[in-house]
Amino acid sequence: MIKRILVTLPVTESHKRRLERYASDCEFRYIPLPDVTAEMVQNTEIIVGNVPASYIKASASLKLLQLGSAGADAYISPGVLSSKTVLTNATGAYGKAVSEHMFAMLLCLQKKLHLYRDDRLTGSWNDYGTVTSITNTRIAIVGLGDIGMHFAGIAKALGAYVIGIKRRKSNCLRQVDEIHLFEALPKIVPEADVIVSFLPSTPLTYRLYDEEFFSNMKRSGIFLNGGRGNAVDQEALLSAVKERRIFSAGLDVTDLEPLPPEHPLWAEPNILITPHISGMYHLPETLENIVEIAAVNIENYLAGKPFENVVDFETGYRK
Amino acid sequence: MIKRILVTLPVTESHKRRLERYASDCEFRYIPLPDVTAEMVQNTEIIVGNVPASYIKASASLKLLQLGSAGADAYISPGVLSSKTVLTNATGAYGKAVSEHMFAMLLCLQKKLHLYRDDRLTGSWNDYGTVTSITNTRIAIVGLGDIGMHFAGIAKALGAYVIGIKRRKSNCLRQVDEIHLFEALPKIVPEADVIVSFLPSTPLTYRLYDEEFFSNMKRSGIFLNGGRGNAVDQEALLSAVKERRIFSAGLDVTDLEPLPPEHPLWAEPNILITPHISGMYHLPETLENIVEIAAVNIENYLAGKPFENVVDFETGYRK
Repeated sequence: MIKRILVTLPVTESHKRRLERYASDCEFRYIPLPDVTAEMVQNTEIIVGNVPASYIKASASLKLLQLGSAGADAYISPGVLSSKTVLTNATGAYGKAVSEHMFAMLLCLQKKLHLYRDDRLTGSWNDYGTVTSITNTRIAIVGLGDIGMHFAGIAKALGAYVIGIKRRKSNCLRQVDEIHLFEALPKIVPEADVIVSFLPSTPLTYRLYDEEFFSNMKRSGIFLNGGRGNAVDQEALLSAVKERRIFSAGLDVTDLEPLPPEHPLWAEPNILITPHISGMYHLPETLENIVEIAAVNIENYLAGKPFENVVDFETGYRK
Repeated sequence: MIKRILVTLPVTESHKRRLERYASDCEFRYIPLPDVTAEMVQNTEIIVGNVPASYIKASASLKLLQLGSAGADAYISPGVLSSKTVLTNATGAYGKAVSEHMFAMLLCLQKKLHLYRDDRLTGSWNDYGTVTSITNTRIAIVGLGDIGMHFAGIAKALGAYVIGIKRRKSNCLRQVDEIHLFEALPKIVPEADVIVSFLPSTPLTYRLYDEEFFSNMKRSGIFLNGGRGNAVDQEALLSAVKERRIFSAGLDVTDLEPLPPEHPLWAEPNILITPHISGMYHLPETLENIVEIAAVNIENYLAGKPFENVVDFETGYRK
């Protein structure tokens, strides 16, 4: 029987050849995301791409939903997917793109480029004083998956002291100087110059970074979030930066996206915000990586083999 | 006979101990730069710090002028120094500070943080599209002294392809993939994704980066200047960026400093400007480095040994 595969990624001809290479007896439909209808979603066995969760309605025909994202929050809520659907994500595709973006934000804040940039509007020639060097920086990375490990590799290559914080025990890896479990976070925070979070949105991560957390940070500390916005209590963060209890924050994700123009986070000079663009397909190789993951999972499905990147509904991470 | 030493650097007590450690029969005067008078400059054998050139009047008493900067432009003009004065600079002290700052500017431009930052004022949630990765970047570094070599080390550690461009022949070094003489620049420019200049101000470097140079660059190219502003024809640079013949520029130095508020460079979004602050003493270890160079040269003077970091009046570089 012909199997229907709906692909909503912005693929090129060469990507299509890769997806179809070993997929016989399949009918591929390539539909740009805005043109996808609920009916298309209902009548397919495999979907590659983040179709609106509301279109799925626990369709029993859907055997594999291969997301184009690492985050799976929209699809793990009860009732979205049938128990017959396997959910796989694109963990591994975004490591370079997101880590480099967050690292650029870090250097920008360390060198105060965000303040100098604001002076463009008035053409002012102000001096914002001392800066810090990555070589003397103690960085705690919360969430040590693909993105966190990439970030660790960059920071370590430039001479930072890197502390990795994970959910599960593992050996110390080449890219990190120390590795700890989540429980150790309160002990690590007061000694860290930089804390960068790559946590997904799950009940366990909701507002993990709260008033107490920020009170625990160094006054010179920099907080970065490249995971999900709702891990942060934004009011607590804003107060900490405003009252100079921490130096600054770099956020590619916020709680509410887009962040409304009147939101007070915009008004604080020492908060650097980018509109959740570190991932996407802004680095062309990210899409190559996603297509490769999807192609392998389509092959696994057809061959009856286990899938890669299966999402754990409890954690929102890859299993 | 007692030797007088005037120090204008903002030194700490521990710096003073270092400077005076082996200096017997010396009278140290520590005067903040704004309080220095022409008379103080006339009545001293050694000066540590960048006193106003006009105060020196070719003083014959002055045996050593140890600058706190790498650039020596203000002191190499005829008539400033007597032939009896040795001029030494602080090359070597700024490598980390300036290279890290310029590298932060590069990542900022590659990830378009400058454009996202401008949206802070309106709270806009715009997407500026594709970005580039340092791992796929071919970087040409013009001027491969201490700062250039530091920059090369950072870029290479993060996976860039690094081309060094020097005045004089040397072996290929660990931090670079290729090394060329200045004459090769026109051949290297069209293939480079990023060109970063660390050239001092000399007659040879004046407006080296002109219309022809920018026309030769890639459309996606990024130009960085961490050397001296007058190496750049700013009108040519502005046209190239404005007309999208190159992507962007990051300048820590400009031709005219401060750059007047009404200067058109400020108005171009894809030009990122910082007010010549990458060096100075903004990274605390820079001052440590300068004090060490000065202490060694004071010792050399007292012992009748050759100086370190002697400036070549023809090139403006360390000999």
